[in-house]
Amino acid sequence: MDYKVADLSLATFGRKELTLAEHEMPGLMEMRRRYGASQPLKGARIAGSLHMTIQTGVLIETLTALGADVRWATCNIFSTQDHAAAAVVVGNGTVDAPAGTPVFAWKGESLAEYWDEAEKVFQFKDSEGNPIGPNMILDDGGDITLLVHKGTEFEKAGAVPGQDSTDNEEYKEVLRVLARSLENDATYWTNIGAGIKGVTEETTTGVLRLYDRFKDGSLLFPAINVNDSVTKSKFDNKYGCRHSLIDGINRGTDVMIAGKTAVICGYGDVGKGSAESLRGQGARVIVTEIDPICALQAAMDGYEVKRLESVVDFADIFITTTGNFDIIRVEHFQRMKNQAIVGNIGHFDNEIDMAGLAKIEGIVKDEIKPQVHQWIFPDGKKIIVLSEGRLLNLGNATGHPSFVMSNSFTNQVLAQIEIFTKLEEYPIGVYVLPKHLDEEVARLHLDAIGVELTELTQAQADYLGVPVEGPFKSDHYRY
Amino acid sequence: MDYKVADLSLATFGRKELTLAEHEMPGLMEMRRRYGASQPLKGARIAGSLHMTIQTGVLIETLTALGADVRWATCNIFSTQDHAAAAVVVGNGTVDAPAGTPVFAWKGESLAEYWDEAEKVFQFKDSEGNPIGPNMILDDGGDITLLVHKGTEFEKAGAVPGQDSTDNEEYKEVLRVLARSLENDATYWTNIGAGIKGVTEETTTGVLRLYDRFKDGSLLFPAINVNDSVTKSKFDNKYGCRHSLIDGINRGTDVMIAGKTAVICGYGDVGKGSAESLRGQGARVIVTEIDPICALQAAMDGYEVKRLESVVDFADIFITTTGNFDIIRVEHFQRMKNQAIVGNIGHFDNEIDMAGLAKIEGIVKDEIKPQVHQWIFPDGKKIIVLSEGRLLNLGNATGHPSFVMSNSFTNQVLAQIEIFTKLEEYPIGVYVLPKHLDEEVARLHLDAIGVELTELTQAQADYLGVPVEGPFKSDHYRY
Amino acid sequence: MDYKVADLSLATFGRKELTLAEHEMPGLMEMRRRYGASQPLKGARIAGSLHMTIQTGVLIETLTALGADVRWATCNIFSTQDHAAAAVVVGNGTVDAPAGTPVFAWKGESLAEYWDEAEKVFQFKDSEGNPIGPNMILDDGGDITLLVHKGTEFEKAGAVPGQDSTDNEEYKEVLRVLARSLENDATYWTNIGAGIKGVTEETTTGVLRLYDRFKDGSLLFPAINVNDSVTKSKFDNKYGCRHSLIDGINRGTDVMIAGKTAVICGYGDVGKGSAESLRGQGARVIVTEIDPICALQAAMDGYEVKRLESVVDFADIFITTTGNFDIIRVEHFQRMKNQAIVGNIGHFDNEIDMAGLAKIEGIVKDEIKPQVHQWIFPDGKKIIVLSEGRLLNLGNATGHPSFVMSNSFTNQVLAQIEIFTKLEEYPIGVYVLPKHLDEEVARLHLDAIGVELTELTQAQADYLGVPVEGPFKSDHYRY
Amino acid sequence: MDYKVADLSLATFGRKELTLAEHEMPGLMEMRRRYGASQPLKGARIAGSLHMTIQTGVLIETLTALGADVRWATCNIFSTQDHAAAAVVVGNGTVDAPAGTPVFAWKGESLAEYWDEAEKVFQFKDSEGNPIGPNMILDDGGDITLLVHKGTEFEKAGAVPGQDSTDNEEYKEVLRVLARSLENDATYWTNIGAGIKGVTEETTTGVLRLYDRFKDGSLLFPAINVNDSVTKSKFDNKYGCRHSLIDGINRGTDVMIAGKTAVICGYGDVGKGSAESLRGQGARVIVTEIDPICALQAAMDGYEVKRLESVVDFADIFITTTGNFDIIRVEHFQRMKNQAIVGNIGHFDNEIDMAGLAKIEGIVKDEIKPQVHQWIFPDGKKIIVLSEGRLLNLGNATGHPSFVMSNSFTNQVLAQIEIFTKLEEYPIGVYVLPKHLDEEVARLHLDAIGVELTELTQAQADYLGVPVEGPFKSDHYRY
Repeated sequence: MDYKVADLSLATFGRKELTLAEHEMPGLMEMRRRYGASQPLKGARIAGSLHMTIQTGVLIETLTALGADVRWATCNIFSTQDHAAAAVVVGNGTVDAPAGTPVFAWKGESLAEYWDEAEKVFQFKDSEGNPIGPNMILDDGGDITLLVHKGTEFEKAGAVPGQDSTDNEEYKEVLRVLARSLENDATYWTNIGAGIKGVTEETTTGVLRLYDRFKDGSLLFPAINVNDSVTKSKFDNKYGCRHSLIDGINRGTDVMIAGKTAVICGYGDVGKGSAESLRGQGARVIVTEIDPICALQAAMDGYEVKRLESVVDFADIFITTTGNFDIIRVEHFQRMKNQAIVGNIGHFDNEIDMAGLAKIEGIVKDEIKPQVHQWIFPDGKKIIVLSEGRLLNLGNATGHPSFVMSNSFTNQVLAQIEIFTKLEEYPIGVYVLPKHLDEEVARLHLDAIGVELTELTQAQADYLGVPVEGPFKSDHYRY
Repeated sequence: MDYKVADLSLATFGRKELTLAEHEMPGLMEMRRRYGASQPLKGARIAGSLHMTIQTGVLIETLTALGADVRWATCNIFSTQDHAAAAVVVGNGTVDAPAGTPVFAWKGESLAEYWDEAEKVFQFKDSEGNPIGPNMILDDGGDITLLVHKGTEFEKAGAVPGQDSTDNEEYKEVLRVLARSLENDATYWTNIGAGIKGVTEETTTGVLRLYDRFKDGSLLFPAINVNDSVTKSKFDNKYGCRHSLIDGINRGTDVMIAGKTAVICGYGDVGKGSAESLRGQGARVIVTEIDPICALQAAMDGYEVKRLESVVDFADIFITTTGNFDIIRVEHFQRMKNQAIVGNIGHFDNEIDMAGLAKIEGIVKDEIKPQVHQWIFPDGKKIIVLSEGRLLNLGNATGHPSFVMSNSFTNQVLAQIEIFTKLEEYPIGVYVLPKHLDEEVARLHLDAIGVELTELTQAQADYLGVPVEGPFKSDHYRY
Repeated sequence: MDYKVADLSLATFGRKELTLAEHEMPGLMEMRRRYGASQPLKGARIAGSLHMTIQTGVLIETLTALGADVRWATCNIFSTQDHAAAAVVVGNGTVDAPAGTPVFAWKGESLAEYWDEAEKVFQFKDSEGNPIGPNMILDDGGDITLLVHKGTEFEKAGAVPGQDSTDNEEYKEVLRVLARSLENDATYWTNIGAGIKGVTEETTTGVLRLYDRFKDGSLLFPAINVNDSVTKSKFDNKYGCRHSLIDGINRGTDVMIAGKTAVICGYGDVGKGSAESLRGQGARVIVTEIDPICALQAAMDGYEVKRLESVVDFADIFITTTGNFDIIRVEHFQRMKNQAIVGNIGHFDNEIDMAGLAKIEGIVKDEIKPQVHQWIFPDGKKIIVLSEGRLLNLGNATGHPSFVMSNSFTNQVLAQIEIFTKLEEYPIGVYVLPKHLDEEVARLHLDAIGVELTELTQAQADYLGVPVEGPFKSDHYRY
Repeated sequence: MDYKVADLSLATFGRKELTLAEHEMPGLMEMRRRYGASQPLKGARIAGSLHMTIQTGVLIETLTALGADVRWATCNIFSTQDHAAAAVVVGNGTVDAPAGTPVFAWKGESLAEYWDEAEKVFQFKDSEGNPIGPNMILDDGGDITLLVHKGTEFEKAGAVPGQDSTDNEEYKEVLRVLARSLENDATYWTNIGAGIKGVTEETTTGVLRLYDRFKDGSLLFPAINVNDSVTKSKFDNKYGCRHSLIDGINRGTDVMIAGKTAVICGYGDVGKGSAESLRGQGARVIVTEIDPICALQAAMDGYEVKRLESVVDFADIFITTTGNFDIIRVEHFQRMKNQAIVGNIGHFDNEIDMAGLAKIEGIVKDEIKPQVHQWIFPDGKKIIVLSEGRLLNLGNATGHPSFVMSNSFTNQVLAQIEIFTKLEEYPIGVYVLPKHLDEEVARLHLDAIGVELTELTQAQADYLGVPVEGPFKSDHYRY
């Protein structure tokens, strides 16, 4: 078995954590119970790219329990939990004879390593050991989907642009990998793309890219947008961040949140969960927003809503949650108080202008501990930046907890089954899961936390005009 | 001017309250400022049916300020505020020479009176005093829209079914009114229907009826679904009920909510606001739900989620918020504690089986004060029922506060303008307001509460793929 | 039977409300069950002065059920509930033949009437119909205790100062009443004072006066400070105000609290409950404080803490809770926004400088409805003042709810029994109730709300060094 | 310099953390600014025993900045932060030439090591290098105070009891150390005791022991009870635990708290903070209590209050906060759900019957990671126990955050100054700090979090009968 992880000897600890996590992921475990015998993913070869954490380990082992062949990379250079990667590789085997799933991920990869490993998740072997591509993709952010599409595009064009065609450090690596591949096999990605039935995508960003491709006609296969399942977006984003924001701040700084003034930039689902997270610890929370509806929601929820410029002088903690870029800029850093704490739980690290910060004349970046830096200004003022502006809940804590990921990942499993077994119902396009599956995901998580669900009588269902067993709401219902 | 209200002498007090309410309804006042000169509703004859409260008074006077001719009835026999009705009728005039808008509503109408008055909102006069129908409807629950459609249907059939064709007391009155009209003028409602450009509808129920009519091909004119504007459903339902639920319980019972166990049946927007309302007062809140997604939300929000049967023995307060029927039934009443409090803030009074309660052998209904009754069981146990099972926030308090209604009603005004001035864009169908108008409604309410909105830079807008001035979200965004 | 109330015919309604309130006052009802047979207050003649509400009705009837003879006045000219007064007077009798307890109180007394009625609670008759004084006082704020002490003092001096010796309108009335009494009987109050075993006092203010008298040697009889029982101060002040603050604002103004900026002046127990009350409704709450410890508590609880001057320009709601005077002054009124709402839930009406407000040149006071006024400034700006600056929870709502008053009043009953039956243990001085009685009051309220109390094992009690049945805490424990 | 720590090379990291913590400890830093020049602790030799964390490092360096000579041990075998110990030892010096304060502490001492190191904090040297005892003690839990008192007692008796006179493993070590000392010098502790001016004690437990000694006449020197300063007990216990409870659970288990049912045993200050901590994360919180007043407070705060027996079957998380023993027993463990989480944030590890758990037949204790164990029952059920039943906020997280400790520790510094400089005002006894110092501690923490304090006018102060600058409250005020 080929694989590349930090240290296989961490597998024992990883296995214990996997077992604990299974208890917290009732949706995935029910998938195993329900479909373990029928093996709906028998024959699926899934190329996966998603933060290689303990929770993802439970997902991977659920996919294999349903019959799939899986290869896995991470989707973020810092987010791998090395003990999780080791445990998934070892599986039922031993450190000397691993018998699990090939994983290509470790904490702290370089960008070059990242894209080299991403390429490897496509390199399946058939039963006779010959190279064969995946027939399914499970993606988070769209990086491996990008490889297939860009690869196909460049093969059609017959050439890959040079690395100096771009300023983007990461895209240089993509071009490097694709150039190498083009040299080896001029139809490699074209063939890979042709073999793929579909992709299930985890995030807003990845989904946006898919819609764009669909609009411009370049999408190669159908896609299921897992991100917009209610049981994903409303749970993972809101409740997941409520958990992991303070967890990241606490582990990173040990600073008392109570009494502090915290600014949450953005009041979407992530911002809503973040604001609640800090208020629950006794912070005074101020929200910034561009959307008048979300701004009004924040006000109705009792938060002060101001422009960043109005509060940057006196606030203690700044958290971006927007999915946009350039939210906290040099002009803001310049005005912040000594030992202000700055972090991002939104999306890319460009929510905070880290590049601009680094360019301030005379500034010194000093590591307090991994993922926690103080930036010392010429006048001695220090600003504490978490996870270098990347997602602080992944960098400073352990990301979302298992229970919330069980919701997202059960959507992933159902989406994989949906496309793999009913491809004919999914012509090329981008789909959300049907509502009855969304409701099913929620249903699978109720028993574990003691929730009793009420059942409609037939008369009540008729009155509402819905089936007794659901789905209960129209597609545009907002929850 | 024809009108029918309880007591015109209440107009002075009503006028003061109107002035106070105007300050709390910045959206409507901005409509007056922005459109007072251009008079976009000049020529509109609006038949309106909506709770005749102070807030509705500000709405009516906004419609007339924009040029409309208006006639108004209430949509609920108990919800009229008599001083509001009086003030709207008097307008700039005096009690002796009223110069406002014709209103046909008073608190405590009988069902027969209710439908008689509803009919009158259609009886406009042209400039020469000749009868003419309305060309617009503004409806809440769909009662006056029903008159037009049923009237038209029966005129086509040539006959109105007899009152004994139905067990429904209210529908008997509808049949009575329509039979009388058919006798007078066999094409009365057909002509009315033909003259109407469109309807704007306030509520879920009304909207459901409209979609049903559209599906079965019987819808006579286009409709705008105001209910599903975010600034209506998410604000009015959630924040409005958070305000008015405890207000109704407090005024009705003066009972301490802290320490009590309260059951909220349903965790939609109304349920979410209701649960928060009671928790904010220190109650222990238990939620019942049929929808696994909403049930999981309730659990994530920290509420116990149980079936009513599991908790009916020991809870102190029971509130229905479902929009469904038969939620609290005789079997539940039988098991409740002495002095349990039961109320409905959901929709119709059939959420609670009031009819069943009244039929329990030996039970005595005793009025404590208007809208508050104790039902005394043969064994002496008392159950306190608010507003006879009708909406307790309207019956025991004063409904939603002005600020939240300003959001709903600004949607109404924009919807009226939209259909009246751009009819060609609205072929028969049911529409929600375009998102930019929804955002505009929110925007109009920010200054009044000191909210500062952040503006996107052009680069940021481009990054997100939205205009700098919005709309900012996709149609399926859930807020 | 002599009495003076607004309208005896309200007794039927009052009786229903009394019955409902009894259910919510388990402590008092347990007093009746426990002591109804032994009649520990047999022989007690209690002069009472405390807001004549429904809850006080349950208190009065508990005292009489324990054997006492009672006469009652209110302690605030606006706080009487006329139906409560009527019901207490009628008792088991009828409107034509009242058989209850003499009450001298109605809503809206003048100051002169107030002090005339206060005097009457001392005018008991013995079994032969001869005048006799009370032997116990139950007081709220110390007004009738003042009559005895001032009366005694002036009788000793042989003269009552003239009314023009004071600017205080209320004290003029005290002097008037005492001068009249001195004229009739030069030792009237001296005799009354000599006959009194002790007083139980409800409030901070009354208690302060008692401590002052004790310090200067003028206290005539022992006093129990009910105010500082934990089950009074921490419950009545904090949880009572959490309930009744928003109730008063809602009934008075119907204004949406969510999204508004509210300033709570003072973060003692009343302030803590008030801040929570408004936050539970979605307000942004700002606190002002003079005490650094309370200020730090407010900050730890997530509130912004500022000086009034820093926020008076933009806040929407201002509530005083301090027990101090001159908190909101003319300079503040001048800077407030149009339609700012101002109210007091602290103590006297001098927390807000109402006199100063009235003296602003050109200002007009306009009544919107009883207890709600708009003060219209020369430039048209309106400020809404609740209850003329007096306690808004009493003036605009119905005061604290029964359950919380049951705690205070059970302390009162226990304190009355304590002094009346164990006078020898109470030499002249001011006492708090022993902790075991304080705990007992709490214990009596647990069953009603479904609380299960854990019992210590003997070993655990020994470990802690407390008796198994309590008391559990040292006297200085802060809860 | 003698010292004993884990690894001096951690000093660089420790020094960075100390600098960060100084910013969060404004009270201590103000002590340095205010008293750095006057050196009020010049001549003080302080023997200290308190968790050797970063915050304690700031305390130690504040004491030395005020002139004191200090020697330090930890008061808990697991709570030392090795980088903090190293940094304090190194001080301004280098790893090769440490120039700070002698510390005797490392994470994971054995009990024998613990008591050996505790003894060393008494071994000062005078300027000529001769042995000399401390003249002040700063203690947490009373262990080093115990050494002095027991040592003196045994020296008087002329013998130390044998180790087999006790079953208590820890007390055996105390006897061993004291026997060794007696052998060396028969008046060692008697002399030490005679040289000590006083002790300042941090905790409830330590304070109880002091009161006991004072009552039985054995107390050797005056003591200041720092624990009962408002700025200690109400802040450290309540807000500190609100912060550190979820921090410990998160770091220990990574489990989602939202939706879980959590039982908080005890609703004192620690319980209040703990309940709020979990509620803020979306848990359903159930409280157990023995004290009816605290139980009623919990109910008023909206928590369900039950006996542990009633809820042990279905709850997910169990936290003890009582200060009592034997709260969670074998009978409870037997009934818990699989993967229930059990931890203690109250006091000693005997709140949970760890000994009983270990004795269950067939049970296996398996370490998941340091301070997190799963106890596997014969039937496969696992119970997760944090920190072996010891304080989980110290064992699984980093204890209270700096800001809250700054409050406690500023009390400590003021108390040390108080006794050291005004010994004549403190005859042998146990004292709390005067209220003006308690208020001063709070005041020193306001600026850092942007709190504006309001100042009384002289007239207002007179009205209240307090000085303009405080103290503002009576000693029995409960905050």
